[in-house]
Amino acid sequence: MGIVILRQDDKIDLWKKALLAADPEIPIYSFLEEHPRDEIDMALVWKHPKGSLQHYPNLKCIACFGAGVDFIFEDTERPLNLPITRVVDPKLASDMSEFVLGQILSHLKHFNQYKVDQLKKVWVMRSYQRIEDVCVGIMGMGALGMALATDLLKLNFNVIGWANSPKENINMPIYTGEEQRNKFLAKADILVCLLPLTKNTTGILNEELFRKLPKGAYVINVARGGHLVDNDLIKMLDEGHLSGASLDVFHTEPLNTDHPFWNHAKVHITPHIASVSDIASVTPQLLDNYKRLQSGQPLKNVVSDLKGY
Amino acid sequence: MGIVILRQDDKIDLWKKALLAADPEIPIYSFLEEHPRDEIDMALVWKHPKGSLQHYPNLKCIACFGAGVDFIFEDTERPLNLPITRVVDPKLASDMSEFVLGQILSHLKHFNQYKVDQLKKVWVMRSYQRIEDVCVGIMGMGALGMALATDLLKLNFNVIGWANSPKENINMPIYTGEEQRNKFLAKADILVCLLPLTKNTTGILNEELFRKLPKGAYVINVARGGHLVDNDLIKMLDEGHLSGASLDVFHTEPLNTDHPFWNHAKVHITPHIASVSDIASVTPQLLDNYKRLQSGQPLKNVVSDLKGY
Repeated sequence: MGIVILRQDDKIDLWKKALLAADPEIPIYSFLEEHPRDEIDMALVWKHPKGSLQHYPNLKCIACFGAGVDFIFEDTERPLNLPITRVVDPKLASDMSEFVLGQILSHLKHFNQYKVDQLKKVWVMRSYQRIEDVCVGIMGMGALGMALATDLLKLNFNVIGWANSPKENINMPIYTGEEQRNKFLAKADILVCLLPLTKNTTGILNEELFRKLPKGAYVINVARGGHLVDNDLIKMLDEGHLSGASLDVFHTEPLNTDHPFWNHAKVHITPHIASVSDIASVTPQLLDNYKRLQSGQPLKNVVSDLKGY
Repeated sequence: MGIVILRQDDKIDLWKKALLAADPEIPIYSFLEEHPRDEIDMALVWKHPKGSLQHYPNLKCIACFGAGVDFIFEDTERPLNLPITRVVDPKLASDMSEFVLGQILSHLKHFNQYKVDQLKKVWVMRSYQRIEDVCVGIMGMGALGMALATDLLKLNFNVIGWANSPKENINMPIYTGEEQRNKFLAKADILVCLLPLTKNTTGILNEELFRKLPKGAYVINVARGGHLVDNDLIKMLDEGHLSGASLDVFHTEPLNTDHPFWNHAKVHITPHIASVSDIASVTPQLLDNYKRLQSGQPLKNVVSDLKGY
């Protein structure tokens, strides 16, 4: 028994330290150090090198450090038929909600334009919109979408959601499936993408979809870069059909310096920081599943192979 | 009987049209056109030319278009002993609250820095703060302060207020008077100034006050430029005692192009647009007081000469 951490950022030591602090007995290794591959039964992964999971003959579970597991499914060289788990963290959800709420208010009040104006010493009052003036449409009503909707409703936003299936316990219109998609889009002055990235949702934010939105709509993508067709967004912004976009996620991260988003006046870029896994909050979940694996209990937050999330 | 509008912006015709649409019979004039000065009994004012109110011998009321009446008291050549009224508008309060909430979230999530980064094509993740990490201190718990506090509480912000007198009907700590001021300041990670501008509050945002705030505190001034000692703010930012400031109001507006705020990386400027009087919402209030004046009924929202608001 043992855990290996596979990530390509500089956070392996941070996580290892946090997991050992919570349980000093646990055999845990970085994939970059010497480690007994035969003994590893759980791999903790975040954008691991493709193919790197092949080398653990006794692996029993692939556990994702975050909420989105699309990068695991993209690794077709991974051992198949193993359970994949993801993090369902209240902090991930509240962080995301606070970020998106901030982006929505920034849009209504033109904060990004005012910062650009300031750098040019320009004093121009722009008329603002109010919460009551807009309808926010949330695509994807999982844990993150529900948390955002709950916060927006507290502030009396007009909120609608689009999901695979009806939702209970929330007092807002939910549009479901392909047949209600266009009705949903026609009302969404501000479209927030919180979908999981799957075969069905790759490239979903494209020209055909944007044209269903009201003229002047604003797009916030905080899910995955793969949801967006970059050139279609630029076309819709330049035609004036969309008024702007806040993008936190990109096909390639960091965003390539020659990408046209950087210089586009209507695109507002943040470097994938809407919601970052909180080590203190996530560590107990990872360890709980590790102990469940050892004792043969059912794992928590197992991803559906069929749905891809 | 008659109304004169005195403002120095380009909105006189807009307001005249709106008031006439609501009551076509009303005798209403711009101070820039020929008008029967003897017949004017109500002056509607927004930053009128000083001394211009002297020329109405039968004036009975000075009605402000907005919530802040400091500019009327500053006009020492105005006819004294006339009632001054101000606007108490739910939209002014909710607009202000939405603006300040947006500024708070922008600060927590570093949106202004990310916009500057984008212009330089810089991809740097900055660690963010959460709603739960900060305490927001509101100076001035009038209609605007109460509306903001109510919204912040809905989102589970830790909120405290500073006011002249205790407040009922709101579940948050209220610190009162000079003796509790320092206790209030010591807790305020984000300080929001929503005070009226009076003799007592002019220059209240100064080095001595800033030093009572926790190190790294953030200041949001959406009240009046006269509350702030500009050089003290710059000193506290440059020393690193304050982490930044959002300023919507200034001693001189538009802000002079050679003012150091424009170029200061920690100052975020908006051009006095936090809350702009909504014509549709304010017009009925102004007309109601005009009719009260004609029929001898008590006026609404009369300002206290003693308090200055």
